[in-house]
Amino acid sequence: MTFSSKLIEKAVEAFASLPGIGRKTALRLVLHMLKQDKAATDQFAGALTAMREGIRECRQCHNLSDDELCQICTDPRRDRTLVCVVENIRDLMAIEDTSQFRGLYHVLGGIISPIEGVGPSDLNIESLEIRAKQGEIREAIMAISPTIEGETTIFYISKKLQPLGVQVSAIARGVSFGGDLEYADELTLGRSIVTRTPYAGR
Amino acid sequence: MTFSSKLIEKAVEAFASLPGIGRKTALRLVLHMLKQDKAATDQFAGALTAMREGIRECRQCHNLSDDELCQICTDPRRDRTLVCVVENIRDLMAIEDTSQFRGLYHVLGGIISPIEGVGPSDLNIESLEIRAKQGEIREAIMAISPTIEGETTIFYISKKLQPLGVQVSAIARGVSFGGDLEYADELTLGRSIVTRTPYAGR
Repeated sequence: MTFSSKLIEKAVEAFASLPGIGRKTALRLVLHMLKQDKAATDQFAGALTAMREGIRECRQCHNLSDDELCQICTDPRRDRTLVCVVENIRDLMAIEDTSQFRGLYHVLGGIISPIEGVGPSDLNIESLEIRAKQGEIREAIMAISPTIEGETTIFYISKKLQPLGVQVSAIARGVSFGGDLEYADELTLGRSIVTRTPYAGR
Repeated sequence: MTFSSKLIEKAVEAFASLPGIGRKTALRLVLHMLKQDKAATDQFAGALTAMREGIRECRQCHNLSDDELCQICTDPRRDRTLVCVVENIRDLMAIEDTSQFRGLYHVLGGIISPIEGVGPSDLNIESLEIRAKQGEIREAIMAISPTIEGETTIFYISKKLQPLGVQVSAIARGVSFGGDLEYADELTLGRSIVTRTPYAGR
C-alpha cells in the first residue's frame, strides 16, 4: 500500500502491529479515526496509555487489578474459603462470565512445561502455598486444561496444598451439553463413560 | 464480559468502538498490549494522536497530507497535465497501488447524491474548476463508480471542465482480467460488448 503521508503510514503500522490486524484493516481503522473528532482519538489513545500505566497484578491472586488488591479479592460477598486455580486471566474471565463461581481465584501465569523451560518457580505457586498456610482456604478447584502439562501442574500443586489441609478438586470433564456424541473427541467420550454420574431421575 | 478492572474495561471499550472490532477481539488486543512493554503502548498511542493532530488536507488535491501540499502534488516527476478525479482517498490509494498512473489527483470527498442531500457545493468541485482555470490540466480522468450518482457527478464535472479546454475521460469498464464471463454481472458484460476494442493481433 502506498501512503502519501508519513503520519498515516505510522498510524497504519501501529494498528497492523497488533495480532490479527492486517494493513488493509489498519487503514480502515485509521480512516475511521480521521472521520471522527480529534477528541475521540485522544480519548482512545488515553484509555490505552492509562490502562498500560495504571494496571497491576493483584497482590493476592495475580489477577489484573487497578489497585493493590483486585475487585474480586476485595468483594466481601465472595466465599474466601474457595479458590479456583487458573492458568491465565482469560480463563478467569471465562469462569467469571458463567456467574457460577462465587469464590476467589489464583492465577498461575502459565503451567509447568519442562519442554518450554517453565518450572514451578516460574509460576505463582509459592504465593498460593502462602495463601493456603494462612488457613482460610478450604478447597482449591483446579480449572486447568487436562493436557500432560496441566496434569503435571495439578499434581504438583495438590502435593503442596493437601498437607496444608486444603481439599483439591478439578472441574468436571465430559461431553458438552448439546454436544453430539459422534463429534466428541475419544478421550473426552471415554473419560465421560468412566466418570459417569448417577442418574438423578425426574 | 466481566472485567475486574475499570482500566481494562475502558481500554476494551476503546478498541470495541472501532468498526469491525467486537469485545472479544478488543480484549485480545488489550491483553496483547499488556504482554508488551509500556513503551510499545506509548508508541502506539503516540502514532495515532500525532496522526490525528498533524494530518491535513492537501490545499490543491484534497488528499490527506502532512504538509500544505501532499507528496503527490509536490512530486516533480509526476505529469501535472493529467488529473485523476476520485471519490475518496481510498480510491486514490487503490490507483496509486497499481503504479500505472503518474499524473496528479483530485479528491472530490463524495459524489453528487440528491437522496443523501449531497450537492455539487458539498464536494471539492469548485477547487477543481479553479485548478483547471490555471491552464495546466490537459485531461481529467474520471475514476468514479458508474452508478447513477457517479454518472451524474461525471456529467456535472464534464460540463464545468470541457468549456475550459480540459479533455474529460473515464476509466475503462469491462470484464476483469481473469474474470469468468459467466460470473460477470449483466451490466458489465453487456457494456463490454458495446464498448469492445479492436483486436490488436500479435
